[in-house]
Amino acid sequence: METGDMILVSVDDHVVEPPDMFDNHLPAKYRDLAPKVIQNESGNDVWFYEGVELPNIGLNAVAGKPPEEYGIEPTTFSEMRPGCFDVGQRVRDMNANGVLGSMNFPSFPQFCGQLFSRTEDKGTALAMVQAYNDWHVDEWCGSAPGRFIPLAIPPIWDPQLMADEVRRMADKGCHAVSFSENPEKLGWPSYHNAHWDPFWQAIADTGTVPCLHIGSSSQLTITSVEAPINVMISLQPMNIVQAAADILWSRVMVEYPTIKFALSEGGIGWIPYFLERVDYVYEHHQAWTGQDLPMKPSELFRDRFITCFIDDAVGISNRDAVGVDTICWECDYPHSDSTWPDSPERLAAALEGVSDADINAMTHRNAMRFFQYDPFSVLDRADCTVAALRSTATDVDTAARSSGKIVVRPSTPVTIMDLAAASSPTKSPASSPTKTPA
Amino acid sequence: METGDMILVSVDDHVVEPPDMFDNHLPAKYRDLAPKVIQNESGNDVWFYEGVELPNIGLNAVAGKPPEEYGIEPTTFSEMRPGCFDVGQRVRDMNANGVLGSMNFPSFPQFCGQLFSRTEDKGTALAMVQAYNDWHVDEWCGSAPGRFIPLAIPPIWDPQLMADEVRRMADKGCHAVSFSENPEKLGWPSYHNAHWDPFWQAIADTGTVPCLHIGSSSQLTITSVEAPINVMISLQPMNIVQAAADILWSRVMVEYPTIKFALSEGGIGWIPYFLERVDYVYEHHQAWTGQDLPMKPSELFRDRFITCFIDDAVGISNRDAVGVDTICWECDYPHSDSTWPDSPERLAAALEGVSDADINAMTHRNAMRFFQYDPFSVLDRADCTVAALRSTATDVDTAARSSGKIVVRPSTPVTIMDLAAASSPTKSPASSPTKTPA
Repeated sequence: METGDMILVSVDDHVVEPPDMFDNHLPAKYRDLAPKVIQNESGNDVWFYEGVELPNIGLNAVAGKPPEEYGIEPTTFSEMRPGCFDVGQRVRDMNANGVLGSMNFPSFPQFCGQLFSRTEDKGTALAMVQAYNDWHVDEWCGSAPGRFIPLAIPPIWDPQLMADEVRRMADKGCHAVSFSENPEKLGWPSYHNAHWDPFWQAIADTGTVPCLHIGSSSQLTITSVEAPINVMISLQPMNIVQAAADILWSRVMVEYPTIKFALSEGGIGWIPYFLERVDYVYEHHQAWTGQDLPMKPSELFRDRFITCFIDDAVGISNRDAVGVDTICWECDYPHSDSTWPDSPERLAAALEGVSDADINAMTHRNAMRFFQYDPFSVLDRADCTVAALRSTATDVDTAARSSGKIVVRPSTPVTIMDLAAASSPTKSPASSPTKTPA
Repeated sequence: METGDMILVSVDDHVVEPPDMFDNHLPAKYRDLAPKVIQNESGNDVWFYEGVELPNIGLNAVAGKPPEEYGIEPTTFSEMRPGCFDVGQRVRDMNANGVLGSMNFPSFPQFCGQLFSRTEDKGTALAMVQAYNDWHVDEWCGSAPGRFIPLAIPPIWDPQLMADEVRRMADKGCHAVSFSENPEKLGWPSYHNAHWDPFWQAIADTGTVPCLHIGSSSQLTITSVEAPINVMISLQPMNIVQAAADILWSRVMVEYPTIKFALSEGGIGWIPYFLERVDYVYEHHQAWTGQDLPMKPSELFRDRFITCFIDDAVGISNRDAVGVDTICWECDYPHSDSTWPDSPERLAAALEGVSDADINAMTHRNAMRFFQYDPFSVLDRADCTVAALRSTATDVDTAARSSGKIVVRPSTPVTIMDLAAASSPTKSPASSPTKTPA
């Protein structure tokens, strides 16, 4: 297949929420309580909610920056590429990269909307979650029909409310919900607990996919606080194996046999080993551990999990052992691991020798099937290829642009402790909103 | 290559220490302080040291048992296969499995001898570590020349004592030392700290290999305390990836370029993905993280790490991407993941189509090179093959033998909480030594 003929659907990108996102979606009584973007004393744009300045990690919005300027320091909207937060510009950046469809994970509310779960008044909390979801589906995704796979956040503090929200969102055409790779690490019951059953039931009833993004247990992978940050960056995708094992051996597999879980940004190259391992464990230990499964663990995984990769030659060459029908592709725009704006070329290099059927499965068909996403009902298929989309975006400047700031390369490696400090919310009266950007 | 023609050296097996192990190796003043095996009130044989009854996990000595009788409950010496603790019987069990050489990790003192680090009087602690090592090298390994790769435990509380012990053991021909996959989790400084430099220097000077066994950070992999134990068993080998990343990005790689680390029981099938990932991280993040390496991370890994597998078809078929010169084989006798007594047959099935050169590298040549182990200086090579060794052990009964106990399969899966309870030492006056087995 020619690079230009591929059709690319990315199941993992990120939205940096724009400051006006709550303007149209909250009942009057909650409007003043909504999170606001403020400029803090250091001159950074930060979200401010319930007296707390939320962390702003520049590394999460680096598309279009030269790598020397990546970093964990906060950033401002004016320093970001507009495609991070402006949906019109986002679609243009997708076009320039030949990407047809995209699923966008949240930024400031955290992957499972944990931010709102900490709001004491649960009426307010639910209003914020629903406003977020309405903005996401109606305004962000709605502005470009056929170009986005909508993804809801859950009111994670109450499984019945979660169920209601899943059904409400399914009625709006949203069949994906962000959930945690390990809710126990967030302070909720684990996958082994019946606590979540109303949520699972709604998910099963609506054919919704719980999407478990790496990092959604809010646990940094810390070998040591002294470790260079490269340790954490190296380990992050593969850490999703913890969730894969946890869920594979959980009651959800047996009680809700139609639910499929997406392991978002988890990579795929480790999966053949993992599947061999779980089968080995089942063979060696089933007799005494008292746990039976409806089929071999590797078969169960291939039946119930959706996987994805950014750039993973090992995984692609072992795709049959992964399960080619489970694999989706992702771009990870605007994060630092993204291949934007050269995704088609990087992907084509890794796909050399792969059949058209397998390419189509991994680049878009699997994603369309899993997420009930049908772009061809609104767009002409011929307009959806890499070449066709890029031809509409020849004016988009994708060259890396320096912010002009003087960047000094650190003399000792950035550590996990540095990141932990940057990731902490600041509760400080000095940070009260004094200036709201336009 | 015919199955019978293979030469098998296992770099990861386990010794269950026999009750008399301290008898010949302690100065008179420490003799009464040595750990002792007692029969406790429940009728189980347990090690007793400094007023504490040490945990005894039956799962760690299951060779020759039917899988229905595996379990975490304590076991007695009389219920174990004698090859677990009797070196003469061990060699016969190795012969019956066609295994020439074996490295044996400790059981009751924990992987890095942590037990002794908790002894308040450090003179006593050092005497115990040295007695352990002298017993291990002179008595256990020494009783069958050419059949064992000796492995020391370190006085982990003092890097200078560690260095001295590494040199003392090297003088006795021991070129491997058990160390932790993450010493920070044991309460010591991390791999990123200069604290360990005397130890690294002695290791570099003597060509000793630090062997990092899975579990040697004493951290159970816990997704949830409610999780079935299968979750933990599935994840245990691959968790060594944390150590691989931590050490690969550590100062040790730069400061001590000749040290090679063994990832014991870590499996190999995940490594190609890991190497692709670390190169990707280096390419995307080197500019801002401030960390330079002497070569590409994947090349560095292949130069500095020793890997091993039990039964890992995925890893073998991707052996070039792992680095065939890094791969060793292991048997894991007498643990539950062992392939004993059918190791040659299981291995041969996974090695179909692999060249003789690669088979020899993985089954014995790499291990011989890394650990300065030269069985052919004492044994005739022709006597070292699977077929030759098995021909000396036709009288060994390898059939699974029931203990005769009535085993009830658990009605709900065994959980990680069950294992955690079984793994805790018991400090109880009621457990004082009342009866010492003969």
